Order: sequence, then C-alpha cells, then structure tokens
Amino acid sequence: MEKLPAQMTVVAISKPGGPEVLIPETRNLPKPGPGEILVKVAAAGVNRPDVAQRSGSYPPPPGASDLPGLEIAGEVVALGDGAKKHKLGDKVMSLVAGGGYAQYCIAQDAQAMPVPEGFSMLEAGATAETLMTVWHNVFERGGLVAGETLLIHGGSSGIGTMAIQLAKAFGANVIVTVGSQDKADACLKLGADHAINYKDEDFVARVKEITNKAGVELILDMVGGDYVEKNLDAAAVDGRIVQIAVLNGPKATITASKIMVKRLHYTGSTLRPRTNEAKAAMVSAIEAKVLPLLNSGKVKPLMDSTFPLAKAADAHKRMETSAHIGKIVLEV
Amino acid sequence: MEKLPAQMTVVAISKPGGPEVLIPETRNLPKPGPGEILVKVAAAGVNRPDVAQRSGSYPPPPGASDLPGLEIAGEVVALGDGAKKHKLGDKVMSLVAGGGYAQYCIAQDAQAMPVPEGFSMLEAGATAETLMTVWHNVFERGGLVAGETLLIHGGSSGIGTMAIQLAKAFGANVIVTVGSQDKADACLKLGADHAINYKDEDFVARVKEITNKAGVELILDMVGGDYVEKNLDAAAVDGRIVQIAVLNGPKATITASKIMVKRLHYTGSTLRPRTNEAKAAMVSAIEAKVLPLLNSGKVKPLMDSTFPLAKAADAHKRMETSAHIGKIVLEV
Repeated sequence: MEKLPAQMTVVAISKPGGPEVLIPETRNLPKPGPGEILVKVAAAGVNRPDVAQRSGSYPPPPGASDLPGLEIAGEVVALGDGAKKHKLGDKVMSLVAGGGYAQYCIAQDAQAMPVPEGFSMLEAGATAETLMTVWHNVFERGGLVAGETLLIHGGSSGIGTMAIQLAKAFGANVIVTVGSQDKADACLKLGADHAINYKDEDFVARVKEITNKAGVELILDMVGGDYVEKNLDAAAVDGRIVQIAVLNGPKATITASKIMVKRLHYTGSTLRPRTNEAKAAMVSAIEAKVLPLLNSGKVKPLMDSTFPLAKAADAHKRMETSAHIGKIVLEV
Repeated sequence: MEKLPAQMTVVAISKPGGPEVLIPETRNLPKPGPGEILVKVAAAGVNRPDVAQRSGSYPPPPGASDLPGLEIAGEVVALGDGAKKHKLGDKVMSLVAGGGYAQYCIAQDAQAMPVPEGFSMLEAGATAETLMTVWHNVFERGGLVAGETLLIHGGSSGIGTMAIQLAKAFGANVIVTVGSQDKADACLKLGADHAINYKDEDFVARVKEITNKAGVELILDMVGGDYVEKNLDAAAVDGRIVQIAVLNGPKATITASKIMVKRLHYTGSTLRPRTNEAKAAMVSAIEAKVLPLLNSGKVKPLMDSTFPLAKAADAHKRMETSAHIGKIVLEV
C-alpha cells in the first residue's frame, strides 16, 4: 500500500453563497477514530443537501466535517481502532457525515458497504446516500409491499430514479411526476408504469384515473409546498405519505380532516442527523435485502453527469438548474 | 320475556338545525338482520358527531338509521340470524351505526359487549363509542406504551376523560389541555399528571417545560385548526399525532419540514365509516385488554349529566356550551 500523504486537495465552502463559493483548498489528511475508516476517494456523489449547505441554509451537524459531500466510493487506506468490517485495500461505498468533496474522507466502518459487482467507482460513489434514503423512507418508514402503488414526486432525480428501480424490483407499481418529456421517458425506461408531467396535467386527477379513483398506497415527496395538500387527495384510504424534502418550501396549508377521514399516515425523515447506530442498522438491512439486486445488475444508479472534483461548482450549477436526470457525481 | 311492542318512541332530527330540531316521534320497531341484535335501550350516550349530524354537516352513512345516537346500553330482546355472542336478556353496551336515541335499537352482535361489573346502565350507555375511539386511536393507531407521555387536547371531554384513565392504567404519563380550572381539577382527579389551561398558558411552552424540552411521544387531538402546527412543536422526535376531530376547523397551516426533521407520524381516524369487521376486531381487543379494567372498577366513564330521552335537545345544548366535564347521557 502506498504511503499516505500528509495533505490532500478538497473542495470547501469558502463562504455561504452560489456555486462559485466552492473553492479547492489544501487540508491535512483526517485520521480515522475508533470504528472509523479512511477512504481514498475515487468518486463523490452530489446531493441536494450539499447545495443547501453551500448556500448557508443547512449547517453541518456538530462534530461533522465542514466540507460538503455525503456519499463516496473509494479504497480503504487506514483503519481506526476496532474497525473490523473492512480491511485495507477494500473497495467500498459509504454514506459519510460530510467531507466527501476531498481526496480522502472518513467513513464509519459499519456504514461502508462493498462496491457492488459490475459497478464503476463513479456509480458506487453515487449510490450510498440515495440508496439509504430510498430504502429507509420507501420500505422501512413507508412500508411499501408488492402489489401496492408508489407515487414518486421528482421521479427523475437521483432519489427518484433509485426509488423507481427498487420499488419495481420489490413488485410495486410506480407512478412518477416529472417536469419534461425527457424526464418522463427516462423514468419509464427505468421501469415506472406511469409518468405524469406536472406542467401539463393535474397529478391528483391523473393518479385517480390511473388507480380507478382509489389513490395510491404510498407517496414519496421531495417537493412540499402545495404538494402536501394534493398528496392528501392523491393518497388512498389508509395511505402513507413520506416527506423527504421541501424543495417548493416548507409551509403548507392542509385540510386536517382528510387525514382523519382517509386514515392517512403522514411522516418523513432526514438522514443526516440519524445516529451512527441507526445508519448502521439501515446498512445491515440493505446489505441483506438490496445488495443482491445491485450485484446482479438489476438495480444501479442512473448517471446524469460527471465533473472533476475541482469543478464541483459546475456540478452544483447543473443540480440547481434541475435539468439533470439521475445522479451527478464528482470524479476525484 | 315481555312481548315486544310494534312501535317505539324515538328522538329524530326533524330538519337540520339547532337543538330544537330534535323532536320525539313514534316509529316502528326495527328488526334485527343477520348477525344483529335488538336492544331495549336503557341509556344512550351523546357524542359530538350527533351534534354534527343534527346540524346537517355529518350525514349518516348509507344504510344507517337516520336517527342520532352512536352508543347504547340495554337488554337484548331479539336476535337476528346467526347472532350467537349474546342471548336474550343479556345486558350489553354497544357502538351502533345510528339510532341510539330510541327505545329500541339495532346493534351488531359482534360489537356488543357485556355491561361491566359495577357499571350502572347510564354509565354503560356512555361507554362504547368513547372506549372504542380511545382504544383505537391511542393504543392501536397511536401505539402508546408504558413510560411514554400522552398529550390529550380536550382533556375534560368524554373522550378525554376516558383517555386519561386508560393511558394511566397502561402506565403512561398524561398531560391534558383544558379551558377552565374546574376542568383541570377534574382531569387531575382522574389521574392526569399535568393539566394546562390553554386560556392562561401556551401549551407548547408548557409541554416543553414539563418534558425537559423533549416533547411528548403521543398527542390525541380533537381540536385541529392552529393546534395542528402547535402539535408538530409539542411532539418529541419520532412522536405520533392522532387527529380524531377538528372542532376548531379543518384547515391548518403547517411547516412540513418539521415532520421530516422530527420524523413525526401524523395520522387520524373516524370510527363511524369503519367496516363491521374492523369494529368487531376493536371490540375483541377491548374485551381482552380493557374490559378487565372496567370490571375491576379501575376505569369508568366520568359522568357529566343525564337527560331523559325526550329532552335530547337540552343534552345537545349542554354539549354545545362545552361546559360539560365527561359524558352526557340520555336515560331512556
């Protein structure tokens, strides 16, 4: 194994602001603590929370790196005390608490997973955060089972495209909402049964039509705003709604009686503040139930575009246009 | 057994309106169908949905009696085909699909329960709807377990006073909100750990104070309106909120991101439209887990006032003042 350098190149948030505040810097290599591993990063996924952190609206949690980047793939180059799941030289992908936009990054040993067979390192780097978000919210929290119908808002996003594939792989029907014909085509190609262009059609009316007025059993929503009330209308009796982001704004006016009358379950979550124990439990479940689907090639991230680490600003620009379909990833 | 009369006295809703539209009438005795029993009513509980039905805002479901009254107690005087759970002469209490404001009323055999030991018929007549509502929403839907804290809005209502007793009997801590010192005293006497007068104090701030900033694990809310957003603030991380009525109005402005960040579960239900199978399942669970508490005298409805059937209008007037503490019941 090569000797580790003392320093590394990272991309830091020089101050809160637009994509231009993402500036390459030199930092000392971090040292893995107990239960941690040091990964030489090959690829780092770009996610919406990175954009929010950069703009100043989503500060990193206490103790986390100030650098952006919540998912990586690379090679294990150092082990902290008690790290036994992975060994030096292993190729892993992992959720990280921050710091992914760097040549080296700390991960929790228990949260790192083997790079799936047949995955490029770029694909692996675009997998962990999305996969854990989808697994937890659609299956663990949302309780999706075979034969049910899942409505995914933002169907062509990194999360949306992973959710389509996993829901189909587990035998559910999938309806997505998207903002263009290109995005609709991409979602249908991934296996979605129906794609609704929200610019052309009222998604509630279309969902009712598709489901013979019954509505959908589960909704995965990253839009918020006026979608919150519409979700109450699009859900079936006993339906579940899982909120994972509020890109259209956090405030919503709802008719609370709809929750009673339809016996809905409205919940949601954010991944980053969960405890390491909770994240490790998700990873264990994913390794048992989802990794086989990745290893078989049945499910893999839909890749939108790749940028070199130093051009992270351009990657953020692309995400903020919302023109992307699937995952944006940084090559390190 | 005495011979059944051909006709009976009932109180009907002569037209949508105020309490004065409740008028005694003579009707033919109903005949129990398959799986049904005919009960000679001794007492009929008065509930909020009766008031809503009288005012025209809550029409009875298809096939149900047009008469108000959702819970009764009395003697079984006729059995429909296949009714085997109860026999002629049994004293029972039951949820009914309507028609409780009458000398005779049809109940589902499977939904009727024995009158608990030590209960007067008036107490038994004020039990079924309240008990099923509390059992389902606090325990089955809300998942309350020992050691958790339950916040009950409308603590002195029929439902609130039953919820206080059951939650305490199952080892939970209870905080209630009420609108007067009398009501606070009544709730504390029933076992509530804390009573907050919402006219004097901000319940969110007080709940945070009582729970050392953690918030409560479960909220049972019959108020709605601006309480919906406040409930999001008063709930603990991973907390559950169960909406069972919206007395302050169905519309609510919420901050949807709070549901994500605190991983809340917001749900609710109404009892009346549930299937007979669902109601029978609740009754089975109650007979197994709650009836022993009623038979031991540990839990019984807090009685506010009794009116003769013919004075049902006065009972509604009292409910609409919201001055009552506990259950209002009609003696038949």
